[in-house]
Amino acid sequence: MSTTKKGLSLLFDRPREPIYKSRANKTVFSIPPEYIVNHFQPLLPHFGDDYNEEFIPIRRITIPPLGEILELQRDENFSLFIPKHRRIAGKFIDIFLAMANLDELLAVAVYAWDRVNPYLFNYALSVAILHRPDTQDFDLPPFIETFPDKYLDAKVFAKVREEMTVVPDGSRIPIKMPKDYTASDLEVEHRLAYFREDLGINLHHWHWHLVYPIEAAREVVAKNRRGELFYYMHQQIIARYNYERLCNKLERVTRLNDWTKEIEEGYFPKLDSLVAGRSWPGRFANQKIRDLNREVDQIKQDVEDLKRWSDRIYAAIHQGSVTDASGGTISLTENEGIDILGNMVESSILSPNRTFYGDLHNMGHVFISYIHDPDHRHLESFGVMGDLATAMRDPVFYRWHSYIDDIFQEYKATLPRYSENQLNYSGITVSNIEVQSEGSPNNTFNTFWQQSDVDLSRGMDFQPRGSVFVRFTHLQHQPFTYKITVNNQANGSRQGTCRIFLAPKNDEKGNPWLFRDQKTMFIELDKFTVNLKQGQNTINRASNQSSVTIPFERTFRNLDLNRPQGGEALAQFNFCGCGWPAHMLIPKGTPEGFASQLFVMISNYEDDKIDQKTDGVCNDAGSYCGIKDKLYPDRRSMGYPFDRMPRTGVDTLEQFLTPNMRVQDVTIKFSDRTVRPKQRN
Amino acid sequence: MSTTKKGLSLLFDRPREPIYKSRANKTVFSIPPEYIVNHFQPLLPHFGDDYNEEFIPIRRITIPPLGEILELQRDENFSLFIPKHRRIAGKFIDIFLAMANLDELLAVAVYAWDRVNPYLFNYALSVAILHRPDTQDFDLPPFIETFPDKYLDAKVFAKVREEMTVVPDGSRIPIKMPKDYTASDLEVEHRLAYFREDLGINLHHWHWHLVYPIEAAREVVAKNRRGELFYYMHQQIIARYNYERLCNKLERVTRLNDWTKEIEEGYFPKLDSLVAGRSWPGRFANQKIRDLNREVDQIKQDVEDLKRWSDRIYAAIHQGSVTDASGGTISLTENEGIDILGNMVESSILSPNRTFYGDLHNMGHVFISYIHDPDHRHLESFGVMGDLATAMRDPVFYRWHSYIDDIFQEYKATLPRYSENQLNYSGITVSNIEVQSEGSPNNTFNTFWQQSDVDLSRGMDFQPRGSVFVRFTHLQHQPFTYKITVNNQANGSRQGTCRIFLAPKNDEKGNPWLFRDQKTMFIELDKFTVNLKQGQNTINRASNQSSVTIPFERTFRNLDLNRPQGGEALAQFNFCGCGWPAHMLIPKGTPEGFASQLFVMISNYEDDKIDQKTDGVCNDAGSYCGIKDKLYPDRRSMGYPFDRMPRTGVDTLEQFLTPNMRVQDVTIKFSDRTVRPKQRN
Repeated sequence: MSTTKKGLSLLFDRPREPIYKSRANKTVFSIPPEYIVNHFQPLLPHFGDDYNEEFIPIRRITIPPLGEILELQRDENFSLFIPKHRRIAGKFIDIFLAMANLDELLAVAVYAWDRVNPYLFNYALSVAILHRPDTQDFDLPPFIETFPDKYLDAKVFAKVREEMTVVPDGSRIPIKMPKDYTASDLEVEHRLAYFREDLGINLHHWHWHLVYPIEAAREVVAKNRRGELFYYMHQQIIARYNYERLCNKLERVTRLNDWTKEIEEGYFPKLDSLVAGRSWPGRFANQKIRDLNREVDQIKQDVEDLKRWSDRIYAAIHQGSVTDASGGTISLTENEGIDILGNMVESSILSPNRTFYGDLHNMGHVFISYIHDPDHRHLESFGVMGDLATAMRDPVFYRWHSYIDDIFQEYKATLPRYSENQLNYSGITVSNIEVQSEGSPNNTFNTFWQQSDVDLSRGMDFQPRGSVFVRFTHLQHQPFTYKITVNNQANGSRQGTCRIFLAPKNDEKGNPWLFRDQKTMFIELDKFTVNLKQGQNTINRASNQSSVTIPFERTFRNLDLNRPQGGEALAQFNFCGCGWPAHMLIPKGTPEGFASQLFVMISNYEDDKIDQKTDGVCNDAGSYCGIKDKLYPDRRSMGYPFDRMPRTGVDTLEQFLTPNMRVQDVTIKFSDRTVRPKQRN
Repeated sequence: MSTTKKGLSLLFDRPREPIYKSRANKTVFSIPPEYIVNHFQPLLPHFGDDYNEEFIPIRRITIPPLGEILELQRDENFSLFIPKHRRIAGKFIDIFLAMANLDELLAVAVYAWDRVNPYLFNYALSVAILHRPDTQDFDLPPFIETFPDKYLDAKVFAKVREEMTVVPDGSRIPIKMPKDYTASDLEVEHRLAYFREDLGINLHHWHWHLVYPIEAAREVVAKNRRGELFYYMHQQIIARYNYERLCNKLERVTRLNDWTKEIEEGYFPKLDSLVAGRSWPGRFANQKIRDLNREVDQIKQDVEDLKRWSDRIYAAIHQGSVTDASGGTISLTENEGIDILGNMVESSILSPNRTFYGDLHNMGHVFISYIHDPDHRHLESFGVMGDLATAMRDPVFYRWHSYIDDIFQEYKATLPRYSENQLNYSGITVSNIEVQSEGSPNNTFNTFWQQSDVDLSRGMDFQPRGSVFVRFTHLQHQPFTYKITVNNQANGSRQGTCRIFLAPKNDEKGNPWLFRDQKTMFIELDKFTVNLKQGQNTINRASNQSSVTIPFERTFRNLDLNRPQGGEALAQFNFCGCGWPAHMLIPKGTPEGFASQLFVMISNYEDDKIDQKTDGVCNDAGSYCGIKDKLYPDRRSMGYPFDRMPRTGVDTLEQFLTPNMRVQDVTIKFSDRTVRPKQRN
């Protein structure tokens, strides 16, 4: 790694320690003195650190004015849902993107370090690094390492400080974080805490939004089918959440569509913000969202506005077209309409008319996150719903996104149904499916608890150096293999896309589903291209190859250890952190076995394929994250074949099947045991 | 100071750092190895601190079983309102009190250090030290130094950690804490934040309850007129709060007597608990208290119970007697009844019948403090109302105590009125009163903002040593002198008690008071014995001599600096921390001048006096705190002459006056300027 890149990597470490101080691995920035903020100037002669170390020279350049970026105080919290914060983040990203080379990028970042809010700094620099051509081989450290406070029980930090001070590096033992710390079983919603508070899921959500920022230079935001992916990724989150709810004997989540009603379930996150020196406020049970008037955030918004925006969005759906900012009409076409609608509902800067269609999804987050202090009289910051890194912890996230998803479903219901022809792949028959997992009967997924460790020393400002691990407990499943038998009766070999989904077999009352309901319950497990020779083919596919997940080691990787060397290895290591965590691929199931249906379809590759090279980085969670700097790797509508209402006459999944599809009854068996951590890597 | 006492003093420093580590001033406890808790045993050979220092030998004794005391986890919060916590605190106090000598006391304390909850440890050891005969010359450090998190904006701590790590000891500058950080002016109740959140007031409240524990060995609890002082101290808090409210154009506080109604005003304390690793939860606006069922606290209590208890207490008042636990009857006599009632309402272990009269005041605190999580479903700890050190920050504290005070007022209204004879002091006339303050017209009090610094390095576990100051802003007044002219027309010299009170001249509507209302508005400013020679006497009395206050330097003293040496000086220094903070003696007033009435009375010392020697410690805030190990220094009912309804025919203060009383119109002028800190001492 070049010295400059090494310098950049140090900016993801100890976000509150002054820039002039010795950093990780005894490295020191050699900084033009005028870069140092005034209040540290008197300290410079004293710093007295051990300076026998590596110097990283920082270039003296003309620093672009930071302007409004400095308006967010260093000890405030930062939210990508708040329009003002979004705007200054966009400006900061653009400054980073505009720097002519890496040395200048490092110079402006070093200059900004002690001036800009640390969360904002980290976000903007991360987005820039993900999008600059000259940083494509740069390892972005997992967000949790720099800001562990957004992911871990606040109680952990006092213990970590003790461990780091009392116990020498090398003898430290992991701090155990309890599996249940935000609520008890008295609160029925707590049954889902293992999902809502999963570190990997929350990291995925953060990283997804790093890849798909709401606001920045247009070339960064305007990614291929970005709006559609907003819809699909969140639809899948809701499908997965509802799946888990059924496993936990709870009904599907109730949409938050009546904003005059109290939100029944409360949530107390028990997170601290180490940067803001404030904890995340709890959300009491039975509170109503109220009109916002918060000068500090430049937000004056009525609950009524949400209603207005949603009415207009529904009108656009039912009219099949939207009105753009200049009064023109844009049709919501069969395949591209969802992309426009996604950008409009979210909304991103790609929304065709933000003035008219508003900022529904984002402002919903804001309304809920300020439920305790809508007019800022109590000088309170937002709750967890106000931060992408923490929002998925709160049960109300799913109620809000279920409402948002319902808008998309309403739109999808207006589209032409897939004909048998659009679904079938002539000559191709899926004749058998088996799920094989070591030590258990076929067609059984096994789930259990697993402990793992994460190193949070990068985030522990003003503490001695050296690793300190927190041990947490998460859901895990036994690795498994799909064995799929496909007959190709066509004349010659064929290519297909194998699409694998899973859904509960019955609804919350134990009744078989109508297809129209079950279709939104299917969670995508995998999608990959297959070559089918004439005759019988056996496809073996391992669970860890899934197109929706990234491996555990990537979600929680420790960059300082075990880092692959060189180009090829680095590419394989895959430094893109977006992707559903592999350990959450399979829902929890039940001790007695949760009846599910595994759906496999081989679609015609001619109708699916995208002509592009996708070797290299960030392509293994393509279904949920897209592929960096590429087209979305599937030409079909996202969610195909379950994204639309069924053709006439189809009431059940069985009736929906064409020969190139097959359904296999499977069961998910949960075993209440806890597996000790794997060897750290 | 003996080595053992030095050892004790180290136990008020860095409450979470392990006992075997080097402590303040490079002192190390030489501890029997079996005292060290298991999880630190492996570290002992490594500790590697610089051991060229003073050793304090710890004796090997038979440690009494700690039993239930260990049930409160080290990272939990501790509340003297929760019966279970009270009980284990009482047991722990009794263990400390029972140790035969200082060496054994130190031994058991060192043994308990890493095993017992740090808040509980500090409380129990403090009470024991205050009450053991062999620790009467021991300086108890101010609670705020050991646990600054209970008093300071949570944001301060991140800055303190930065300052302690980045800036070498000696060059550190005070961290500024904003005057307003819990709310904005939009919240009308925030006008009183300077009072509610005053560090000195909250420290006083904590210390008062150290002197008057609710539960412990009977000889510690059963102090002279303890129940009456509970009434009077809190009555004065409410009077002072109402005074401040009137200065801020707010009406007197509304009693919290309808427990089925929502509590309108919310409060968000923005305090962290460094020990519990949890912040203090906010209290949302418009919440109702609800039935409690918290297994963890062993509390199962209905709101209805409060009602039941208060009905029985009112019945006792109106019957003039209480029923004791064995079914006997105890009369509420004219002078002693209030003491019984105080213990009953609070309640302390002196309550004549806790089963029947319940635990009204304490449980009110508990109900309110759990308003956000009454059944512990969210695993939440209590709000600030649940801790004596923090309760006075919350506006609802005053609503609750106004209700409690009203019960006492109801009782006081049943007592015989004072006759003119009981009020007058034959031959004694107060003929003139003047308040003199440098640089301002007579009879004017001047108030303003003052900045002061407090050192919190004792409380910053796992940080480098050396002082670090937080600069806070509080109300202050110009020092002043009362000049009182008294004629003694009796035959020979006389002794009297000079009683000085202050009240607003008009009610919140600007109308003159009826005496029956104004009497509960009088705040005590001073009370002292005077010798009156025959003829004219001039009494000069300085504001800093007040019998209700302790000087600023005592509230916030830094024990490591400027400590007086030797017995006499030490006695003068006065190490008892109970007392209203001197800087809050005079209410804030208004810029235009707040019209008030200064009341002076000379009562007959023959009817007032208590025969005891009160030289030495802890006697200068006697009116609010009593005198340690002595009788209350005034034989009259506390609050005399304003503690009862006026005699027939008296409707106004003027009519109430006898010749030995006088009223002077005065004004309190607030000037919105901030005075920089005095030289640290």
